[in-house]
Amino acid sequence: MSGVIATYQVYDKNHHLEKKAESIALGLTVGSWTSLPQNDQIQLQKHKGKVLSIREVECEDNIAEYFGHRPTKGFIEIYYPSLNFSLDIPAILTTVFGKLSLDGEIKLVDLNFTDDILKQFPGPKFGISGIREKIDVYDRPLLMSIFKSVIGRDIQYISEELKKQALGGVDLIKDDEILFDTVTSLTERVTQGKKVLQQVYEKTGHKTLYAVNLTGRTYELKEKAKQAAEAGADVFLLNVFSYGIDVLQSLAEDPSIQVPIMAHPAVSGAFSASPIYGIDTGLLLGKLLRVAGADFSLFPSPYGSVALQKETALKIAENLTVQNGLKETFPVPSAGIHPGLVPSLIQDFGIDQVINAGGGIHGHPDGPIGGGNAFREAITATLSGIKLNEYALPDTSLQKALQLWG
Amino acid sequence: MSGVIATYQVYDKNHHLEKKAESIALGLTVGSWTSLPQNDQIQLQKHKGKVLSIREVECEDNIAEYFGHRPTKGFIEIYYPSLNFSLDIPAILTTVFGKLSLDGEIKLVDLNFTDDILKQFPGPKFGISGIREKIDVYDRPLLMSIFKSVIGRDIQYISEELKKQALGGVDLIKDDEILFDTVTSLTERVTQGKKVLQQVYEKTGHKTLYAVNLTGRTYELKEKAKQAAEAGADVFLLNVFSYGIDVLQSLAEDPSIQVPIMAHPAVSGAFSASPIYGIDTGLLLGKLLRVAGADFSLFPSPYGSVALQKETALKIAENLTVQNGLKETFPVPSAGIHPGLVPSLIQDFGIDQVINAGGGIHGHPDGPIGGGNAFREAITATLSGIKLNEYALPDTSLQKALQLWG
Ligand SMILES: [Mg+2]
Ligand SMILES: [Mg+2]
Repeated sequence: MSGVIATYQVYDKNHHLEKKAESIALGLTVGSWTSLPQNDQIQLQKHKGKVLSIREVECEDNIAEYFGHRPTKGFIEIYYPSLNFSLDIPAILTTVFGKLSLDGEIKLVDLNFTDDILKQFPGPKFGISGIREKIDVYDRPLLMSIFKSVIGRDIQYISEELKKQALGGVDLIKDDEILFDTVTSLTERVTQGKKVLQQVYEKTGHKTLYAVNLTGRTYELKEKAKQAAEAGADVFLLNVFSYGIDVLQSLAEDPSIQVPIMAHPAVSGAFSASPIYGIDTGLLLGKLLRVAGADFSLFPSPYGSVALQKETALKIAENLTVQNGLKETFPVPSAGIHPGLVPSLIQDFGIDQVINAGGGIHGHPDGPIGGGNAFREAITATLSGIKLNEYALPDTSLQKALQLWG
Repeated sequence: MSGVIATYQVYDKNHHLEKKAESIALGLTVGSWTSLPQNDQIQLQKHKGKVLSIREVECEDNIAEYFGHRPTKGFIEIYYPSLNFSLDIPAILTTVFGKLSLDGEIKLVDLNFTDDILKQFPGPKFGISGIREKIDVYDRPLLMSIFKSVIGRDIQYISEELKKQALGGVDLIKDDEILFDTVTSLTERVTQGKKVLQQVYEKTGHKTLYAVNLTGRTYELKEKAKQAAEAGADVFLLNVFSYGIDVLQSLAEDPSIQVPIMAHPAVSGAFSASPIYGIDTGLLLGKLLRVAGADFSLFPSPYGSVALQKETALKIAENLTVQNGLKETFPVPSAGIHPGLVPSLIQDFGIDQVINAGGGIHGHPDGPIGGGNAFREAITATLSGIKLNEYALPDTSLQKALQLWG
């Protein structure tokens, strides 16, 4: 077998999963079958989609109430031969969930590639180990800070904010995903940012990378990325789902762009939020981003107000890091993170993650420096097996953080 | 005002639409506000999002049952100043529905551009009038036929199928959206297709355009399109949502690609199928495709098994054709279309549409030639105000079609 195996969740009002599965497997490959002449059947056999499994499960009561009837719920696995498509994400998505995405109560919940196909995809250029080498930190989660409200701000303001955050000991600082090249340009942020971070490094000996938002027209991104790379860009933030996953792959594959890519989940909720329709979050923000070459994947943490279910967040992280021959992608559970959550974060996501905070750094009583320090203390305490409130000495950044956020 | 106005449908479990609206308007622009120093407030005022309207409506019973509680349903309009983003679809989508798409029960239901912003977008290069000139048909809906089951078939098979369809008098023939450049190449299909269609034209005097599926890696599409254009491509079919809307715009804007673009809705259901989450179908397949430059937009018709609600399909068509300074995009209501539906199609969508059939052409007792003829007869009858069963003489293609499909 060489191809992709798609798993679908369906709610079938006709209560006939076998028929549904067979009609998908044929409809998305050779079309009709039994009516074909014998010769055509022989020739087309190798192009035919195959139903691999069908599993009926209980339909949820609230979903039955929503439909106004109780459909048959099930999971269907279908194999699509690689002969049928070119080896790119747009062709694969169109094949497995093109017109099917419009066909009623169906969700694409997983996609598995046979090894020969998976090998054709780049995966991350740097991956977790490559990023760790850049930062020279191997034994703890990385810490990232997000710019707060920088819309409309000039390069001086941005430089100052960058400096404050870096002084708190964070490993990465990222642009807001809604910061475009209007007031400041990408290259300006890279150049000025590098200067500031170099100053901080000379003072503290701590290295901080700046993830700049790579934005603009699709066909200008590569050239912009190359210029920013030449100016010394550390990391690119990319709103993958505003463009297309293939754009991420092209940037990741380009040998002249030696810069890690951080995938932002902006717009992805439009695909993944419904339990009935769309594309599974673990597939979208986990598997596909890794296959296409993201070095980092941001996703809603299970703790904040913009939250994923814990099971979903863990599934993303698993897909980003499970051994599959590709480099690993850093999981970045985001939103609602404050220092008091570090023990839960490490218990749930382990060492190989980026702990990412906005309000939890900027909102610290001592500002972003205090916020960064508090997180670093919380990480040290947790990795030493000491409870945060036992570790936190009076008047330290950590103690102030725990007082504020618990 | 210069910017975009986004309309959201929300289900608010906190029953506080004003608060929700204000937090979106600030959160997606300047961030916090009341805590800002006066000077910053003055400087940032012009970047601040503004709540334009809030309208509460009744929450549907079945949706309340699905949630297990009865949230407040409402529509919220928010204005985002154009100062905040670069003038491209990825930046606009990220701004208005980036992280917001991940934030609970919210759907982007409309997007309106101020005139100065709308003017920056290309719209269709040819539009309805330009396409009509190419085909030299002005007074009736166009008729399109879709290849049936061409996966795994060679160029000879495709050429024969093309010929049969053209002989039935269709104006357009389109590749299947799941046909990639595996067995045949794009340029091969264009070159051979042109030859066949020229032969048919010399025989019948009827012009037929061939919409070839433009596929492959994002950064190769332009070069492929140019080569195919040089080889004489009539129309490109594009799986816009497998790539990104900005890719469509770039192809539409490129002056060296003088070929109309037909947008296929593949994968779009992943965004638009849920009534609670994602992006509205009328916005996605109507407004955005037109703004970005699609000359045709395919969408599920309200008549078939893969169907849209009639109201939704009509909204798409309205968005594609309403006067807004851009050229008009041909609506192509698709799926489940047979000759008997022509009176409904014309009543619902008017003259300026493409009537598009697969099974309704190939499944005709006399094959695709009979199918094409039957549709053409049905169109003539309807435009003459004659009922199909009164118009259909014994043993004509139309009569056979009516017998089969009603
Ligand atoms: Mg943000
Ligand atoms: Mg099709």
